[in-house]
Amino acid sequence: MPDSGSKAAATTTKKIHELMKVALGEAEADSAIVGGDIVNVYTGEVLSGDTVLIKGGKIAYAGKNAGKSIGSSTQVIDASGKTLIPGFIDGHTHIDYIFSVSELLRYAIKSGTTTIITESIQIAFPLGYQGIIQFLKATKNQPVKIFVVAPPMATISPLAREHSITTGELRKLLRRKEIIGLGESYWNYVIEGDQRILDFIAETKKSGKKLDGHSAGARDNKLQAFISSGISSCHEPTTVEEIMERLRLGIFVLIREGWARSELEVVSKIKDEKIDFRKLALTSDGTQPGRLVTEGYMESIVQKAIDLGFEPVTAIQMATINIAQHFGIDDFTGGIAPGKCADIVIIPDIQTIQPEYVISNGQVIARNGQIVVQPRKHTFPKSMQNSVHLTKNFDASDFDIPLESNSTSARVRVIEQATGLVTREAIMDVPVSNGLLQSDTSKDILKVAAIERTYLPGKTFVGFIKGTGLKHGAIATSTTWDTCDIIVVGAHEVDMARAVNRLKELDGGIVVCDGNKILAEISLPFGGIFSTQPMETIANEFQGIQQAAANLGCALPDICVTLSVLTTPAIPYLRICEQGLVDLKQNRFVDLIVG
Amino acid sequence: MPDSGSKAAATTTKKIHELMKVALGEAEADSAIVGGDIVNVYTGEVLSGDTVLIKGGKIAYAGKNAGKSIGSSTQVIDASGKTLIPGFIDGHTHIDYIFSVSELLRYAIKSGTTTIITESIQIAFPLGYQGIIQFLKATKNQPVKIFVVAPPMATISPLAREHSITTGELRKLLRRKEIIGLGESYWNYVIEGDQRILDFIAETKKSGKKLDGHSAGARDNKLQAFISSGISSCHEPTTVEEIMERLRLGIFVLIREGWARSELEVVSKIKDEKIDFRKLALTSDGTQPGRLVTEGYMESIVQKAIDLGFEPVTAIQMATINIAQHFGIDDFTGGIAPGKCADIVIIPDIQTIQPEYVISNGQVIARNGQIVVQPRKHTFPKSMQNSVHLTKNFDASDFDIPLESNSTSARVRVIEQATGLVTREAIMDVPVSNGLLQSDTSKDILKVAAIERTYLPGKTFVGFIKGTGLKHGAIATSTTWDTCDIIVVGAHEVDMARAVNRLKELDGGIVVCDGNKILAEISLPFGGIFSTQPMETIANEFQGIQQAAANLGCALPDICVTLSVLTTPAIPYLRICEQGLVDLKQNRFVDLIVG
Repeated sequence: MPDSGSKAAATTTKKIHELMKVALGEAEADSAIVGGDIVNVYTGEVLSGDTVLIKGGKIAYAGKNAGKSIGSSTQVIDASGKTLIPGFIDGHTHIDYIFSVSELLRYAIKSGTTTIITESIQIAFPLGYQGIIQFLKATKNQPVKIFVVAPPMATISPLAREHSITTGELRKLLRRKEIIGLGESYWNYVIEGDQRILDFIAETKKSGKKLDGHSAGARDNKLQAFISSGISSCHEPTTVEEIMERLRLGIFVLIREGWARSELEVVSKIKDEKIDFRKLALTSDGTQPGRLVTEGYMESIVQKAIDLGFEPVTAIQMATINIAQHFGIDDFTGGIAPGKCADIVIIPDIQTIQPEYVISNGQVIARNGQIVVQPRKHTFPKSMQNSVHLTKNFDASDFDIPLESNSTSARVRVIEQATGLVTREAIMDVPVSNGLLQSDTSKDILKVAAIERTYLPGKTFVGFIKGTGLKHGAIATSTTWDTCDIIVVGAHEVDMARAVNRLKELDGGIVVCDGNKILAEISLPFGGIFSTQPMETIANEFQGIQQAAANLGCALPDICVTLSVLTTPAIPYLRICEQGLVDLKQNRFVDLIVG
Repeated sequence: MPDSGSKAAATTTKKIHELMKVALGEAEADSAIVGGDIVNVYTGEVLSGDTVLIKGGKIAYAGKNAGKSIGSSTQVIDASGKTLIPGFIDGHTHIDYIFSVSELLRYAIKSGTTTIITESIQIAFPLGYQGIIQFLKATKNQPVKIFVVAPPMATISPLAREHSITTGELRKLLRRKEIIGLGESYWNYVIEGDQRILDFIAETKKSGKKLDGHSAGARDNKLQAFISSGISSCHEPTTVEEIMERLRLGIFVLIREGWARSELEVVSKIKDEKIDFRKLALTSDGTQPGRLVTEGYMESIVQKAIDLGFEPVTAIQMATINIAQHFGIDDFTGGIAPGKCADIVIIPDIQTIQPEYVISNGQVIARNGQIVVQPRKHTFPKSMQNSVHLTKNFDASDFDIPLESNSTSARVRVIEQATGLVTREAIMDVPVSNGLLQSDTSKDILKVAAIERTYLPGKTFVGFIKGTGLKHGAIATSTTWDTCDIIVVGAHEVDMARAVNRLKELDGGIVVCDGNKILAEISLPFGGIFSTQPMETIANEFQGIQQAAANLGCALPDICVTLSVLTTPAIPYLRICEQGLVDLKQNRFVDLIVG
């Protein structure tokens, strides 16, 4: 009996036979796209008059002698006057977070995105290795291809770190075909020689797979130290200069147009550089539900690049072949050529990225913005819910910060929002009453707490934050990055307690409350980080949260992002977790009370 | 105890640590290259004022803040006024043939070639799987990196086919890191659905490795059928049009400047096309010993491209990063950037490809044309000799071709040399005497015989050839492509027998004789196809063979190549093996006597 390897090879052999027969004009194609101009991402040309023949999900032929293979069983798509481009590839995103894979895919499909490379870090923190496996299952057998990078799991939380996936688990992940590499390693952990992360990098190098990077703000020696480890990409440059420095170092640069950050407009002048763009790409790095619903996904990013003055062919290369080539998947996607998967988008013209047909693996999956092949809904097991393991309800006193001296004020280290994302340290005085440190709403100095919810549920650290603008009420979220913490900020401790207790009831999500009233909430019961609700529902709920926060005085553009990133080591520089405040510049815990 | 995988990862982790320290200015580099201009193959720029720091064979840093890492233990190379380029990569060659690996490397090292991707097909025919394993051993632990493609072993010889490596053996080869893919599959076998070769292709696809192609003369539907199988490269285009057709199909095109063929000059006008050149490369496809000795290896090819008007940076990209990216080895070679192997060549200026320093894995391996680190000589086992298994000596009557009728002449199918490589069919009359078909030296119609030497030793087919020009004497060779045959051509049968008998004594090689005299010979005792003699000796002996052939009347430019390719299915179109004449246009055996 043939072994399974031989059987797989025999199937491949049969498919090759079929494909060749269509190319030779000896068998009918499943479908044919006739009459369109084709953007050739290999040469950078636009070519006219070619017919694309498709058989068994692959391109058999793209040229002028296709007639013999178009028969009665061939579905003919007339693309006269239209333009064919390869399906888009998102080279770096997060679809394990906020929404389910199938809901993201509804928008990916319409957008012409036929390949997605996603992180799995958000699900890995609360749900570990088994959560990643579930996520991989959710990404399988979908109308588009999804590859996943394994999570390096850099974290400021000692508890989260202790419960990170093991090197052995990483090794198991790396053996899977759908695991394309290791996800974004934060540069500071790498250059400071974090043993676990270097071991993860070493394991990945041994597997021959890709190492994604995250080198926000790094330059010269530090940047080069980082990439000397084998890291080969970065999606963090915020200036043309940063892009140029990275491209010259051989780094694959993904220009980001995403949720937390969007740099495309600022860096668009890169288009005028007379350099080789093969290592430059466009990416979402995760898309905000509201933006998905109103603007779309990759189609809107490519359109924006064109509108900003990128040569259309260059912009399309930046969303197709450049990414395929970087990840070594260009043998089967990224361009319109024989032998590749038939991942093709038909648009009105090269300037107008409005997919009329989206074809993935030879199948029409969307037509004029309507989905033809629905994404598969994965049933996530019940066990992935109930990840908020808090055993008791919080009350106001849980947010007390006692002072040992009798002083009436204390100098504290406050997390100050420099922007909606970046924080800095502000040393400020807060009042003390009854031996307890107090918020000072008049100066916008509020309490912020990080509450571990998974491995040592209820372990809490309380600090101060300046810049949210909340005049009353509180906001709590379990969508924090790179820890298993809940973050709650509020004008009053009693509101903070209420928000956390409601979050506990919801099994995770985001809650805005004021006094006894829940103003807005979103339930994210899976791992406390995502929901299987329709994207439009989620988008509405997010809008509700932002509106409610604004009503409480919050002036930040996206309070959910601001609170979520308070726990991440990815963004400078004063961060918080259940163990305390972390100064990322020194990469160590720092005291709250400084005098 | 840690498993060996963990140990390997631990070593990698340690090396990353060391490299990062040098990049950060916290440890001394092993060596530093200061003052040169650097050709940045990623962006296509030439940048000045950067210092390259090397540690443990890798590049730690390339920039302007290198001073802290240059200490008393650092070897400083002053490249002021010079230009740094990445080490060359030959993306398609044959170093299992004629000369030993170490002799080729003497020239590769001087030429600045630090990575070689070679076929293993020549050794595979006479010596099989064990021969390939020996070849892999010979390529290991050399001063430069050598990758090998496994042989698809398309052949016109039923005996050679029967003894091809098996799919199981291919699978074992594909598991090795140094096996980078499957070697050049000839297009006609693939599109005709040769089951064994399609199985080899399927196995290779399953392994995720590359499929090299050989699509000489194929176009449109046939070309596309061929590449629909997953084939991703071709080194056979002979016109700009053929290159353009392939590039547009996403094929990686290697422009050849080699032994059997050189197309660089003819196709150099491609340089004027306004297209993306990322999938275009330069290659040797095997180099003639005499050319190696007098002109060199990759340096002469890149120089020729520049002299023909290619932009120097483009020419250098075509011999470095483009090849690395195609084969997915750009994470460790192909450009000068941190984390990559320190594979660097210092040349006088970007127009002048004369390596002054050749650095491979951080080590200076050549200096001003002198080798500093000698290649390792592999000891091939005795068993690889004695591959010419003929048991009896030949005599003139072994080349008889009897005719059953009493006619005084016969119409025969003659192999006519259209060029030194390409043959066509000529239907001609030859005289018959004593019931035997005779050569006709006056018309340059000579006998040519293919004699199996390995699996059914002595099995012989005798036909006719026109175009060698031999007036007397005979030439025999065991260097035939894609079979295990000896080819002998001669003006007289007795000379043919003598040449074959001498070849038997030599255990393979090439012999030119005339009457009782051996005019020239070269001994190639390993597999009957290569020698471990110095390259210069081999070059001289080849010159001797060519001179002796010329003295016998041969007007062909390279008689050794002409005879070697008589057995290959790679070049059109009338070929010969021990079983008979093969018409490649029909891919079948055809009769010698046609009337």
